[in-house]
Amino acid sequence: MLRAMMRRDRLLLAATLSTIFIADLYFILLPKLRHRQPHPGDPSCFCSPGNVSLPGHAGIIAPWLSNWTSTSPLDEEPSERSSKLGRLFAHPLYEPQGPGVLGPEEWLLQQEELLEYYRRKVSRWERHMQFYREVAAAANFTILEQKVTFDPKASWLKFHLGISRHALYRRHDPWHNPSRDPADPSHDPTVPRLLQDMQAHTIINADYTQDEKALKGACDCSQVVKPSGHHLKLTLKMQNFGKAMYKPMRQQRNQETPEDVFYFVDLQRHNAEIAAFHLDRILDFRRVPPVVGRLVNLTGEVLLTTHNEDLRNVFFTSPANNTCFFAKCLYMCKTEYAVCGGPDLLEGSMSAYLPSLSLAPRVSISNPWSRSYTYTGHQEWEVNTLYCDSIKKIPPYNSGSRLLNIIDMAIFDFLTGNMDRHHYEIFTGFGDGFLLHLDNARGFGKHSHDEMTILAPLSQCCIIKRSTALRLQLLSRERYRLSDVMRESLQGDPVSPVLTEPHLLALDRRLQHVLTAVHRCVRRLGEGPVVVDDLTAGSSSTNTWAMAHRQPARHATKGS
Amino acid sequence: MLRAMMRRDRLLLAATLSTIFIADLYFILLPKLRHRQPHPGDPSCFCSPGNVSLPGHAGIIAPWLSNWTSTSPLDEEPSERSSKLGRLFAHPLYEPQGPGVLGPEEWLLQQEELLEYYRRKVSRWERHMQFYREVAAAANFTILEQKVTFDPKASWLKFHLGISRHALYRRHDPWHNPSRDPADPSHDPTVPRLLQDMQAHTIINADYTQDEKALKGACDCSQVVKPSGHHLKLTLKMQNFGKAMYKPMRQQRNQETPEDVFYFVDLQRHNAEIAAFHLDRILDFRRVPPVVGRLVNLTGEVLLTTHNEDLRNVFFTSPANNTCFFAKCLYMCKTEYAVCGGPDLLEGSMSAYLPSLSLAPRVSISNPWSRSYTYTGHQEWEVNTLYCDSIKKIPPYNSGSRLLNIIDMAIFDFLTGNMDRHHYEIFTGFGDGFLLHLDNARGFGKHSHDEMTILAPLSQCCIIKRSTALRLQLLSRERYRLSDVMRESLQGDPVSPVLTEPHLLALDRRLQHVLTAVHRCVRRLGEGPVVVDDLTAGSSSTNTWAMAHRQPARHATKGS
Repeated sequence: MLRAMMRRDRLLLAATLSTIFIADLYFILLPKLRHRQPHPGDPSCFCSPGNVSLPGHAGIIAPWLSNWTSTSPLDEEPSERSSKLGRLFAHPLYEPQGPGVLGPEEWLLQQEELLEYYRRKVSRWERHMQFYREVAAAANFTILEQKVTFDPKASWLKFHLGISRHALYRRHDPWHNPSRDPADPSHDPTVPRLLQDMQAHTIINADYTQDEKALKGACDCSQVVKPSGHHLKLTLKMQNFGKAMYKPMRQQRNQETPEDVFYFVDLQRHNAEIAAFHLDRILDFRRVPPVVGRLVNLTGEVLLTTHNEDLRNVFFTSPANNTCFFAKCLYMCKTEYAVCGGPDLLEGSMSAYLPSLSLAPRVSISNPWSRSYTYTGHQEWEVNTLYCDSIKKIPPYNSGSRLLNIIDMAIFDFLTGNMDRHHYEIFTGFGDGFLLHLDNARGFGKHSHDEMTILAPLSQCCIIKRSTALRLQLLSRERYRLSDVMRESLQGDPVSPVLTEPHLLALDRRLQHVLTAVHRCVRRLGEGPVVVDDLTAGSSSTNTWAMAHRQPARHATKGS
Repeated sequence: MLRAMMRRDRLLLAATLSTIFIADLYFILLPKLRHRQPHPGDPSCFCSPGNVSLPGHAGIIAPWLSNWTSTSPLDEEPSERSSKLGRLFAHPLYEPQGPGVLGPEEWLLQQEELLEYYRRKVSRWERHMQFYREVAAAANFTILEQKVTFDPKASWLKFHLGISRHALYRRHDPWHNPSRDPADPSHDPTVPRLLQDMQAHTIINADYTQDEKALKGACDCSQVVKPSGHHLKLTLKMQNFGKAMYKPMRQQRNQETPEDVFYFVDLQRHNAEIAAFHLDRILDFRRVPPVVGRLVNLTGEVLLTTHNEDLRNVFFTSPANNTCFFAKCLYMCKTEYAVCGGPDLLEGSMSAYLPSLSLAPRVSISNPWSRSYTYTGHQEWEVNTLYCDSIKKIPPYNSGSRLLNIIDMAIFDFLTGNMDRHHYEIFTGFGDGFLLHLDNARGFGKHSHDEMTILAPLSQCCIIKRSTALRLQLLSRERYRLSDVMRESLQGDPVSPVLTEPHLLALDRRLQHVLTAVHRCVRRLGEGPVVVDDLTAGSSSTNTWAMAHRQPARHATKGS
């Protein structure tokens, strides 16, 4: 017995040493070798018409990578780039896919249907404006009329058309490789253009969001949870009919959420929305709709453009002569929840709208690891160490990649510190598609605290996608350090600095926690059942699931 | 006409020069001369059995003092004291009154009646505890039982018995002259003892205050104004049956009220309550009941001592494992208004209760210079420059000293920056008695802003008591600087530092604004009608009023 243990220990030691060597080879020596090759930036290197879930990288084996056989190891990896972000996106793990490899059933929308929808919207708007003009003339008030354009090349349209069963947008845009020739068919400037439009386009209309309209101003304050972030988020419509959700700034960057505040009454932070989009892109999930910062003129772009009387009525001028508006909810004592411009301009986040639910229905599903929204309640996952075993038996978590996607989401939320993931949404059209990471405004509240319970899905189920594990490992290296690439990525936002340094550095610390959690699982159960292959050709969702399922982490415990 | 103006100018110049000379003589030379006299601290110097409204100081004439003839100028004024506060309280303007000079009708309460009330309270408590013990035994819960004492020498009893028609307490206590012999009949340690008791005495019971009970938890949130400071203030009962109102800390000392917040939704600050008591005493108003800071154990001294189920139900444990409680009001989303201990102890202010309304009824009267509690409304005083002329014709402002008292209150509120004085209270038993300066927790919100409109009663009516004007002048001198005496006075509080330096320095700046406002009035109307004599023998309330009223400031304008 003892001898068997010793032999196992020796094996473990050998495995660890070889792992370290392989990691060095993969992350340090190989990129250097590549750098010495002629034409490191040659676009012809991107020769493999890969698929996001099936890239090819032959012979490269990294920790948790032993099952990952690959066919084209010599992708561009310009190790001496001054930009860490550029270096990251040039890494083989972020290899762009060529266009047109997806079948029609893999796209969310059909171009004709969307254009028809757009045309109908514009006609409806024109009819509405005709009516509104008559009302205004009768009531003798002037209206601010902005020119409306029908633009079949509008960036929001391109964004909607680019949503596939794999992600909200594709990797190959000028961010990922700014040096790429625009004539290159893999060049796709959709998302950067959309960000630019949301930040600068003329706003023609402001209104409450649909879910706030549904509440009709009457909040149920017997509930502890604040409804809809206090009704301060607005829908802003742009000249080309693109729509964005505007969340105004409510908290200074350097303010931390007080430790006594429950996550469910925490303020929503516009900068968390922006930072979450960048993080999601850096993790290569691409499940957060594009978000950008914007200085909105509360008078000219909201008060004067809205046709909603209720919204107009919550505007007031503060004692400091600033334009402010407050939550609509009747049972709130109002001005404490107000936000104010200075005197009119107020920073906020602009999140791109997803396609209308009539075109692309989504379903909202309760997160199995959601929290109790009361002071004292506890959910089963908080007390039952075998919780994941039960979840693994229940559809949709018993097959496909849903559970692996839940774990991706938990890692994403743990990195931002967001405890408020009560639901997730998926597009019904894709069946077991990716999970949308919507509503990230309650992240980045405390940089000095790592809420380990957010990682429960990972630490209890002990499975993770190989692609996720690899990217996290990459981002923990000095050459691609997460805080550095995030800082660089966020610098491009108009309201930069988006995150304070302590929040950026917290990302590195939390990333280490995630890697430690994976290491613990591997040490306990072996790499096979923990790191689920989603990269090699032939590994389908079902296969990866089945692989993990054959050796379930029966004795996984919370935090272990 | 021109010659008449020139003559008037020359007269004004001469008056100003002589005023400066007299001021120097009074405030600088005379104290120095006194200091050179033998036995400067000799208590025999306090030979004049003065009265607060009629002290005697012969031949000393200061600015605004020309009508003030006095009979005993040689009071102690130890100019070289290291303590500015000691120096201030040793100044003739703060001369203590001997005991027993007041007739029985000048005291608020009769000793026998109060003792009888106290006895009844103790018996009722004992009956209640008997009943509560039975309930606890039946419901099988343990109760925390503290010993109750009937103490006819209790400091709160002495405080109540010491309330006279002139002020809430007398000047002659050990603060005002700590070196005074305790055997001296003018030695009265009531207030210091009361502060000591409120800070350290065992708490036997906690409950909501009466006005919060009256609301029964249902706030009218169609009103913008928050009711009762969000129901977070509590009544704490001490072992000897003294009662204090506890206002918990809600804001860090260095936080300023955001400029967009309306005064009526501003937080209540416990340190403002403490500082206001000290300021009121330094101004010699003595119209704020004693207040002291205390670290209260929310579990041991509130949760476990209360017999009120409603109060128990608003307690919870925060995510950081601190004991917290929140506002009772049903329509408030709760935890944002919560306060938390660390883990149990929470700083707060303890304000001494005034005698029961059944013994000493009070009436609450709307402040003629109250503000509009809406976003846009304006009160008449804000737009009508002749507002004070109308007020002067209406009872009770057309006679007695009510209007002068309103102006004292406005000066007090201006110094603290409190805009929330919608009502004031007086004891009905005294007729036109002094105004109680209750509820000062919305002062000291912004140190960087001086809200000049709070001074409107002074700048519009252009009258001030001579005693107030003199003390303000004194406190503007380097030797008695208001910020220095406040700092020194507040150092004695257990939760010191009570105010940050910027708040202390703001007091000096605001004091200058008050003096400038008085100077403007004097320049415009002459000293006679502006500075109303309340110091010389024979100047009764009616006389002082009549004096001011004969030459009304007809053309007084706001801010002039």
